Amino acid sequence: MRDALLAAGAVEFQEHGYTATGIAALAERAGVYKGSFYHHFASKEAFAVEVLAAYARAARLESLAEGDTPPGDRIRAHFRLLHEQLEGRGYAFGCLLGNFAVEAAPDNAALRAAVELCFAAWVDALAATIDEAWAAHPDEGRDAREVAQFLIAAWEGALMRAKISGDAAPVDVFTRVASSALFPCDEVVD
Amino acid sequence: MRDALLAAGAVEFQEHGYTATGIAALAERAGVYKGSFYHHFASKEAFAVEVLAAYARAARLESLAEGDTPPGDRIRAHFRLLHEQLEGRGYAFGCLLGNFAVEAAPDNAALRAAVELCFAAWVDALAATIDEAWAAHPDEGRDAREVAQFLIAAWEGALMRAKISGDAAPVDVFTRVASSALFPCDEVVD
Repeated sequence: MRDALLAAGAVEFQEHGYTATGIAALAERAGVYKGSFYHHFASKEAFAVEVLAAYARAARLESLAEGDTPPGDRIRAHFRLLHEQLEGRGYAFGCLLGNFAVEAAPDNAALRAAVELCFAAWVDALAATIDEAWAAHPDEGRDAREVAQFLIAAWEGALMRAKISGDAAPVDVFTRVASSALFPCDEVVD
Repeated sequence: MRDALLAAGAVEFQEHGYTATGIAALAERAGVYKGSFYHHFASKEAFAVEVLAAYARAARLESLAEGDTPPGDRIRAHFRLLHEQLEGRGYAFGCLLGNFAVEAAPDNAALRAAVELCFAAWVDALAATIDEAWAAHPDEGRDAREVAQFLIAAWEGALMRAKISGDAAPVDVFTRVASSALFPCDEVVD
């Protein structure tokens, strides 16, 4: 019942946003009584934090560090996985992390902290892989953490735009420009 | 009274988001009776489209094409103006355009169309200036429209993150990385 609620939450939050999602609609989608919700979760806020945690786990950040493929390939595979997941949900759904970042009210401290933790973990994992990719270019003169933050921002902005266009075009632009502009180390990596 | 409502709308929408903004709070902030709202605007949706139009005009896209300063300087001045406006409103407010892009429901066709128009005008203006900056590098091999879309996405993603952090750090990262990664033509432009 708890898992059914979490799965329903991911869809409801992405379809309607945080504010517009009601517990009644959530319970109905999960096929449980509304009262059951409060048996499993203290509040909509606490519930949203758990839905976000499950969403973040699906991004498999650990795959950025794993395996014997070159770091540049792992970065591309990472964004390809995110793109496939987005395609599966539909482009109009955007990114749950980005949607929560925009919607979390100043007084929703728990959700804001969870959003910030997800971004920080993502920057850490991506920056480490960019660092690895740049190892052969020590005098590159760029900061891997800042490039990671920039790439993640560009990804989120692309998904924001895809939410309106409803198609892959903004994500395809991200993939092409990010690759040509930010990985001049490709000739070494590939 | 109409102008007071539009000014109040910009603040209410940025503070609470589209969904959570109510006409009563809006009228109260503008210092008018709730009934006056419907005298001036057909709906919250139609009102949001006008608030967005005023917000977009403040970005002064025409300044990207104007003046006798080099195109690279105009691009930097453009994002500096946006950064100053953001600082004035407070980093936690984010970008009204981006916030609406995330929040506009699939059935809110008028607002979605207005958001798409704003993004398209922004991409057009920025791409033309990037093209100008690249004129001396005809074999650059990159697409100015795609780079413009990528930059705008990175800007929106940075403002999304600043909405949570409440400070300038994500915007400063945008400024540094965008400049070093995407304007290799600087030595010609400056």
